[in-house]
Amino acid sequence: MDSYRYLILTEGHLGPHTSKTANSAIRYLPDRVVAVLDSAHAGRTTQEVIGLGGAIPVLGTLAEGLALAPSALLIGIAPSGGRLPSNWRPLLHEAMDAGLDIVSGLHVYLSDDPELAGHADTRGVRIRDLRKPPADLSVSRGLARLVEPLVVHTVGTDCNIGKMTAALELRRALQARGAAVGFAPTGQTGILIEGWGIAVDAVIADFIAGAAERLVLKAAEGNDIVLVEGQGSLVHPAYSGVTLGLLHGSLPDAMIICHKPSRTCPYGGDGAYNWMPLPSVKQMIALCESAIRPLRESAVIGIALNTWEMTDEEARAAIAALQAETGLPVTDPVRYDPAPLVDSVLAASTRKRAQLAASGSDAVAVA
Amino acid sequence: MDSYRYLILTEGHLGPHTSKTANSAIRYLPDRVVAVLDSAHAGRTTQEVIGLGGAIPVLGTLAEGLALAPSALLIGIAPSGGRLPSNWRPLLHEAMDAGLDIVSGLHVYLSDDPELAGHADTRGVRIRDLRKPPADLSVSRGLARLVEPLVVHTVGTDCNIGKMTAALELRRALQARGAAVGFAPTGQTGILIEGWGIAVDAVIADFIAGAAERLVLKAAEGNDIVLVEGQGSLVHPAYSGVTLGLLHGSLPDAMIICHKPSRTCPYGGDGAYNWMPLPSVKQMIALCESAIRPLRESAVIGIALNTWEMTDEEARAAIAALQAETGLPVTDPVRYDPAPLVDSVLAASTRKRAQLAASGSDAVAVA
Repeated sequence: MDSYRYLILTEGHLGPHTSKTANSAIRYLPDRVVAVLDSAHAGRTTQEVIGLGGAIPVLGTLAEGLALAPSALLIGIAPSGGRLPSNWRPLLHEAMDAGLDIVSGLHVYLSDDPELAGHADTRGVRIRDLRKPPADLSVSRGLARLVEPLVVHTVGTDCNIGKMTAALELRRALQARGAAVGFAPTGQTGILIEGWGIAVDAVIADFIAGAAERLVLKAAEGNDIVLVEGQGSLVHPAYSGVTLGLLHGSLPDAMIICHKPSRTCPYGGDGAYNWMPLPSVKQMIALCESAIRPLRESAVIGIALNTWEMTDEEARAAIAALQAETGLPVTDPVRYDPAPLVDSVLAASTRKRAQLAASGSDAVAVA
Repeated sequence: MDSYRYLILTEGHLGPHTSKTANSAIRYLPDRVVAVLDSAHAGRTTQEVIGLGGAIPVLGTLAEGLALAPSALLIGIAPSGGRLPSNWRPLLHEAMDAGLDIVSGLHVYLSDDPELAGHADTRGVRIRDLRKPPADLSVSRGLARLVEPLVVHTVGTDCNIGKMTAALELRRALQARGAAVGFAPTGQTGILIEGWGIAVDAVIADFIAGAAERLVLKAAEGNDIVLVEGQGSLVHPAYSGVTLGLLHGSLPDAMIICHKPSRTCPYGGDGAYNWMPLPSVKQMIALCESAIRPLRESAVIGIALNTWEMTDEEARAAIAALQAETGLPVTDPVRYDPAPLVDSVLAASTRKRAQLAASGSDAVAVA
């Protein structure tokens, strides 16, 4: 998946809020998107339609797209029902006829669709479902606690507040400071961007922590620091199980908590969770730390604020207030300099290396 | 499933610790077990082999079993790999030929096995996988908080310590006191016993809480009290995600915590979790209460101790000590009188009814 050149299908759905998968690909993999297929906006650029992607063209026909030599057709939407619009099927067939693989982040697995899978077989192409978990998952044995790199988990006060984005910004800034950073993707967008990972909310419940463990062990290879993408929150009425399994499977040395000040109730369709207020950031920090404490000591070492909906003045005030309240480094790593969080992670990494070296020499001394 | 007469297949595996599903059926549904099929013990009774079931015969051939007019063949084992021994297949075919449905608690779904499913279709019989979740699960909306009956959830300090058994004993004792009690089964054994339920550890991770919500809404119908079977523990490195999802989906009014004093580390094959000590019961109570607090207030109102491995003297001392430490009613509801827990649940039920009546009349007064 790492080298696909994507033709993205959004037919009728391209927009700032309606084509989530397409928009992520355009934001994070612009060099690998040859075009978007959407006859409603044909002739424009993605920049003009969704404010991203520069000169990436929006085309009206598959033939025009094929002329740009893509290697895969990416399903560009992630509707809440999770299904493929049935009138898209003929186009998927044509794309496979032209030798393209199909990549999908839909909840429904296209590779399990007998008709589509049969056609892919016939044409010798592959269907890649980003959310489909590996078939050989197992329960966690707690091995993530033993890896050498510093493991940092981006937890959050709610879902859908930018935990992945914060982690990716943090990675970029850490890399700029010379650190070798592994990113462990736990959702479809991260998997699309990185070319590997496991959608932990799609695995069998028994294997949530086992999936997290596997991700950490892999992301640790050859790296100094591992960033584990968070999901949901420990207080989300629907998704908290995924969040706790991910925390206990990844067994991080440290956590960065992500928060969106404008969010006052857990996120969900049509206000499903408006009956409960979100705890304060300080309360959420205490909850995260006490949830992992029986397994290992781990602390929140920074706060990533999502100030998207605030003026610059409001955002700076929110950052200063939270810093005063918690004593932790706080920033919006997308909007401002991520340095406060980067410094905090690098300091934790140095502390862990020192501890490992100390316990290593102890072991040698004893032996 | 409620009316099956079971012929149980354990061929070569019948024993106190090797035929878990068979033993549960014999313990809880003795009147509906016609015989056990196990040539290694043919000619004896189940009482003689596993200490349960009285005169239930162990037979050597399917023909003898069919003579007792069973309506289903129950797979009597639940091996950790979760697979059907391949040499059992011919016997399953013969049972289906004789018109028996197949009931299985294996992790691998027999109804997804093309060969077995095809044979079932041909013969017009059904394969019932106890662990297979409904196909139409959805995310929780937190509706369990609104049901009228008192919802009590049996949480625990670890998995595999008798949470289901404690809940069933409690139900029996509550019924003897005149309460209408619904039991919400969350694992394969409970589902086998009750004839309905959802194995919450087998659902897609996103739907853990949604499955729990559905169970509570159904168990609430026509009842005064709902007992929700717990799974795992909030500190189990592999299963904690299931536990938290179940807690947040069932949103109980109150909790009974189950504990086995001899357990010092989380349960797992070959000591996988010996690297961490279990917190004390008191710490676990605090953890359960703080985990649900952001969603609703709920308190642990009693402790069910599993004293199986203790002498009578040790057990009584452990109960007294824990009672003094926590101030809560404590008993081993299997070994001793469950009355302390029953009284606690009935008192909570009375309190909830009074609250509902009060808020109801408030509402009327306001309207």
